[in-house]
Amino acid sequence: MTLKLETIASHLAGLEETLIYKLLDRAQFAGNPGAYRPGQSRFRPHEVSSLFELRLHHQEKLDTLFGRYLIPEERPFYLALPPPRRVPTQGETGLVIQDLETVNVTGPIRTDYLAMLPGLCGDGDDGQWGSSVEHDVICLQALSRRIHYGALYVGESKYREAPEKFAALVAAGDDSGLMAAITRAAVEETVLARVMAKVKAVQSVSDPALRRLVDPGVIVDFFRSTIIPLTKEGEIHYLYQRKPGV
Amino acid sequence: MTLKLETIASHLAGLEETLIYKLLDRAQFAGNPGAYRPGQSRFRPHEVSSLFELRLHHQEKLDTLFGRYLIPEERPFYLALPPPRRVPTQGETGLVIQDLETVNVTGPIRTDYLAMLPGLCGDGDDGQWGSSVEHDVICLQALSRRIHYGALYVGESKYREAPEKFAALVAAGDDSGLMAAITRAAVEETVLARVMAKVKAVQSVSDPALRRLVDPGVIVDFFRSTIIPLTKEGEIHYLYQRKPGV
Repeated sequence: MTLKLETIASHLAGLEETLIYKLLDRAQFAGNPGAYRPGQSRFRPHEVSSLFELRLHHQEKLDTLFGRYLIPEERPFYLALPPPRRVPTQGETGLVIQDLETVNVTGPIRTDYLAMLPGLCGDGDDGQWGSSVEHDVICLQALSRRIHYGALYVGESKYREAPEKFAALVAAGDDSGLMAAITRAAVEETVLARVMAKVKAVQSVSDPALRRLVDPGVIVDFFRSTIIPLTKEGEIHYLYQRKPGV
Repeated sequence: MTLKLETIASHLAGLEETLIYKLLDRAQFAGNPGAYRPGQSRFRPHEVSSLFELRLHHQEKLDTLFGRYLIPEERPFYLALPPPRRVPTQGETGLVIQDLETVNVTGPIRTDYLAMLPGLCGDGDDGQWGSSVEHDVICLQALSRRIHYGALYVGESKYREAPEKFAALVAAGDDSGLMAAITRAAVEETVLARVMAKVKAVQSVSDPALRRLVDPGVIVDFFRSTIIPLTKEGEIHYLYQRKPGV
């Protein structure tokens, strides 16, 4: 696999577009804070977990059967999921990685997503907890896919551009050197501008009588403060585990 | 509940918009006919069902736990699902119906959807069977919701406009009289024109380098030949089971 940065960038832009649509779908429901509080799921028999946790865990137990987490960029939020019953067809990835779970930043993805929700949806309660957490799972899966795709494939393609330099930084344990080496400030600004334009364009064709519109700044800020930094954190995890010379 | 036809129509338009987005998402993958053939899921241990059937059935078994099918317009595609572990909060629906399953047209929804897929996605194979059937389930759920919402709430609101007339048609078993009484040709044309405009508008803000564009006529034809007729079929089922004078 050639791992052309151009192809990777175009795929990332597609994943970002999907993510924007999913976040705007979630925003059609209220924040529904009770859906995220332990013990309030109203499951019978009683469950300690929140409705959100129950939904996410059940969905991942289903998805793992179908082999979702054998795809490099599909990293799960839960550990110890059952084994897959199916192996999806996949071409050669071009990645050099033994254990995909060494590049898993779903912990901070979940934390940051839940912290962003009140900005996206407000803190009201419309009673639609089930639909809300169903959309949360879709958003988290789209986030995990976008962030880990960037971490893995952008990480590998940057390594290939300067293998000696990255091998030396890794050997020296130089985190800030690695961060400097993978950061492309101009590309980040381009991404943020594209997200702003995309949210505005999508909402421009929505009927405000049917759909609640969102402040595009909320989504742009989420890209700036969470998606881009966690992608770079994942890239560094990837580079640390990558065997040099392969 | 007042069941104002205006509110119902606006909610239906919102469900249609969601459905259009889901169909365009499915169209990003190839038709992948093998995913719909029995015995080809590559599940281990072997399964007789197709990958599509497995995905739909597993998802419904999960969703029923969360109480999805206690919502009137959320009708399942499978029978004999496990009992819910949670009862979603719901306001008074205004519907007069004992058994929601008396208004379930998911059989023809599934048949017609699968027949429409090659027109939407072509008949090629891109290897992405897992993503394809995941999107199919989302499309089928959006279709079931749109069609049964129309069948139930439009059916009830039309009944309330002329209860004696509908009671007489039902008592006489006059199917063609019922069909004539619930048909609003001008409204149907308005829906089709709105769908055409919506598909065009959504695709106008898509980047053709990132997203495969769809012939809007495929989606408009699906509304004309499946969604509208099955909604009316569901309305007639609803009217037959509705107790007069309640």
